[in-house]
Amino acid sequence: MDDPLVIAGREFGSRLIAGTGGATNLAALERALIASGTELTTVAMRRSDTEGGTGVLELLNKLGIEALPNTAGCRTAAEAVLTAQMAREALGTHWVKLEVVADEDTLLPDPTELLDAAEQLVDQGFVVLAYTNDDPVLSWRLEEIGCAAVMPLGSPIGTGLGIRNPHNIEMIVSRASVPVVLDAGIGTASDAALAMELGCDAVLLATAITRAREPERMAAAMRSGVDAGRLASQAGRVPQRFWAQASSPGRPME
Amino acid sequence: MDDPLVIAGREFGSRLIAGTGGATNLAALERALIASGTELTTVAMRRSDTEGGTGVLELLNKLGIEALPNTAGCRTAAEAVLTAQMAREALGTHWVKLEVVADEDTLLPDPTELLDAAEQLVDQGFVVLAYTNDDPVLSWRLEEIGCAAVMPLGSPIGTGLGIRNPHNIEMIVSRASVPVVLDAGIGTASDAALAMELGCDAVLLATAITRAREPERMAAAMRSGVDAGRLASQAGRVPQRFWAQASSPGRPME
Amino acid sequence: MDDPLVIAGREFGSRLIAGTGGATNLAALERALIASGTELTTVAMRRSDTEGGTGVLELLNKLGIEALPNTAGCRTAAEAVLTAQMAREALGTHWVKLEVVADEDTLLPDPTELLDAAEQLVDQGFVVLAYTNDDPVLSWRLEEIGCAAVMPLGSPIGTGLGIRNPHNIEMIVSRASVPVVLDAGIGTASDAALAMELGCDAVLLATAITRAREPERMAAAMRSGVDAGRLASQAGRVPQRFWAQASSPGRPME
Amino acid sequence: MDDPLVIAGREFGSRLIAGTGGATNLAALERALIASGTELTTVAMRRSDTEGGTGVLELLNKLGIEALPNTAGCRTAAEAVLTAQMAREALGTHWVKLEVVADEDTLLPDPTELLDAAEQLVDQGFVVLAYTNDDPVLSWRLEEIGCAAVMPLGSPIGTGLGIRNPHNIEMIVSRASVPVVLDAGIGTASDAALAMELGCDAVLLATAITRAREPERMAAAMRSGVDAGRLASQAGRVPQRFWAQASSPGRPME
Repeated sequence: MDDPLVIAGREFGSRLIAGTGGATNLAALERALIASGTELTTVAMRRSDTEGGTGVLELLNKLGIEALPNTAGCRTAAEAVLTAQMAREALGTHWVKLEVVADEDTLLPDPTELLDAAEQLVDQGFVVLAYTNDDPVLSWRLEEIGCAAVMPLGSPIGTGLGIRNPHNIEMIVSRASVPVVLDAGIGTASDAALAMELGCDAVLLATAITRAREPERMAAAMRSGVDAGRLASQAGRVPQRFWAQASSPGRPME
Repeated sequence: MDDPLVIAGREFGSRLIAGTGGATNLAALERALIASGTELTTVAMRRSDTEGGTGVLELLNKLGIEALPNTAGCRTAAEAVLTAQMAREALGTHWVKLEVVADEDTLLPDPTELLDAAEQLVDQGFVVLAYTNDDPVLSWRLEEIGCAAVMPLGSPIGTGLGIRNPHNIEMIVSRASVPVVLDAGIGTASDAALAMELGCDAVLLATAITRAREPERMAAAMRSGVDAGRLASQAGRVPQRFWAQASSPGRPME
Repeated sequence: MDDPLVIAGREFGSRLIAGTGGATNLAALERALIASGTELTTVAMRRSDTEGGTGVLELLNKLGIEALPNTAGCRTAAEAVLTAQMAREALGTHWVKLEVVADEDTLLPDPTELLDAAEQLVDQGFVVLAYTNDDPVLSWRLEEIGCAAVMPLGSPIGTGLGIRNPHNIEMIVSRASVPVVLDAGIGTASDAALAMELGCDAVLLATAITRAREPERMAAAMRSGVDAGRLASQAGRVPQRFWAQASSPGRPME
Repeated sequence: MDDPLVIAGREFGSRLIAGTGGATNLAALERALIASGTELTTVAMRRSDTEGGTGVLELLNKLGIEALPNTAGCRTAAEAVLTAQMAREALGTHWVKLEVVADEDTLLPDPTELLDAAEQLVDQGFVVLAYTNDDPVLSWRLEEIGCAAVMPLGSPIGTGLGIRNPHNIEMIVSRASVPVVLDAGIGTASDAALAMELGCDAVLLATAITRAREPERMAAAMRSGVDAGRLASQAGRVPQRFWAQASSPGRPME
């Protein structure tokens, strides 16, 4: 019924990109991933060389889900570039979700290091999906550099505060020519639906599922939320009015 | 996977109650009703004696959807009671969605007339689903009178303003012992999801579907939105935090 | 610079109506009342016959502030009417702030008892300022009955949640022909300013001042907030735009 | 009653910084500036060499208001630095409000050019007050560079959308050790009050006053709004609660 999500020429049937962070055991993660319907899932490279991390990669492989290495935890462009290179070697993919954060309290992107890393990685042939603040200018700069997707946050990672500034997301979407993926801050299904209604092409979330009381059920909720928001954005919602309008005007339908 | 919605002892698999108001032709309405998955749909009695209205009843019958007569357009208790009685006669149902509105500009319920009508109808053996303002006290009074469900608005009918006062809905839900159905004001799928996340048992909407640019697609969006919100409210969302929290804490999973 | 507030033909220079509830000592209350600039202050009658209460009346008398007896704590029309009558006797005023609340958890008005009490008190010659939910219909009914002012809540008493439903307040204001006083829920100065910007004629608050860490300073804050909102509503604010607009267009002023 | 605002060792009694942009005639601007109580007012350098601009400088001089040159309209670090240097020469001040915007539609700061310009200007001995997006990281970087104040936006220049992301402003304030001035987006007095309640040290606004229907009255509104918010933030507001709490507990005060 719907067009596929296309990033750098690859098609995905699902518009929910999952993360594995916060998962407490592999069996629960497996059930959640299946329930989410995701076809693309991020893996923290700093973790994948550990036993648990390897387990995650094997799990994704078994489920037929594409692994998207990320550079979570990197604080400088140099670190992020190195991490991406290691991921390319280890996983055999030149796709990377680029994260370069400024500090531990906010986990917000560092604009300068982010742009620097994005430029280097694009030059080196990576397909870069860049995690960014919801700053429209930063988002446009990342696109100019050649990022394959921009991933503005709704609110800081792990806060569950939803989309704090829909206006920024709308500005980003209105001028983007690459896919916009709402990343970080989603807390519940209506947040995911709203992201899609604002015009985002996909949603990325991790702990909203993995740390929910029932991860599998929340994964199903998020899947439905993304579908709902996507459909609603295509269906053309009714306008908002100040005063009421009767739904039953009294005249018969013809 | 989910418990059914139970109103007055009857079970419904779908938690989306549709309305037929605003539909412009029967074929489009049919497709939208099917896409919505609804099992219970309101019909304005003041309209059902017209040709179009009859068509609506036949359509619902054909689709196996229960018709729920409403008293839309009634301004006094007397009018509403009379309309309900006529509906019982005409449709052979003692269920009624009770609406008693105060004026045309707001279509907001008149508290006094509403309570009066509810009392009379319950006394006469009706199963009353009462459309009410989002006033928790009014809602609790309707429940005390014996209404089978309370249906607080999100915002005035036809405004598409969504849920203007989530705090009121939460107060209503926290003390209700009959189903709470969010009725009126829903504009898009994230509104429907939010209603369920706030603890509502179902959502009722009409023009958000019938007046969308693509009613059938919006019906599917609303169906997914209701599912998403229901699942999320059961799954136990993550708490909200001021500061960030890493999803990939660096330690391997066991 | 500003028109006075006129209620039932009496003029007030201040648009901040204070309450005495929550005050912990008379000296602090005195400083706060002076800082607030209020000319009209509510007193709970159920309290004024106690020693502390008498002190409050003497204090208001000394400060030249008009005492407005309220019926706080009343749960039925009968109780409220009796309380108002006692207040008239005790204080020599036929003004009353009418409160009839439904329960202790919400302190929300009971619509039926409130309308009943308002009708009786107006019939008995009282000047009735009615505390009401933010339901526009209830507000209009109170005005039809003959109340001298309607006092919709921003949020439940003592919650400090501010104005949860500005849309309702705007609907109330747009059709009111008596003063609209935002009563209950104000937590901070920007809430008071917003109330006035929405078109309210005055603001009533008690614990936002008396329970602040520094009541006197908060009283000054509220006074400024009310002034700010009143002036802004008269000055005609700039419209909201989606895109930016330069303030310095490059052309010289003539 | 209040501490002065201190920027780079200079004290200001007023916490409202005005802008002259959008003013349509000098007489109206004069009345508005007086009503605002401002002691520091921005002037666009690209305009001050014109006749109108000169008039603005003379007006500020006559009113005893300090002129703060800004670099409005600059798109690169080089342009901004040059403009600041010209301003230093022309106005004899080494203070500058630094603006480097990315495009005309959003007038949002360009993070890279902004940081570059700030660094150069600080090196050249300027006192730099930097207009920035509400990105906490960018704000902290500007402070590290040595800016004397950071000026995050509430929303894009001229939109009147108020403070779209209070969470970001709170994060900025919580870690800033230089003054935080809310700049851009303010539409009305309650926005200004809110900025101060969030912990900002001052508010900067131009067209919210100059383009209001009555600029002089709006200037007075903004002055009161800033005072109100400052006082409220110092006074310690009541906490927010879900359920009500009676202000008149029935027990007499001692």
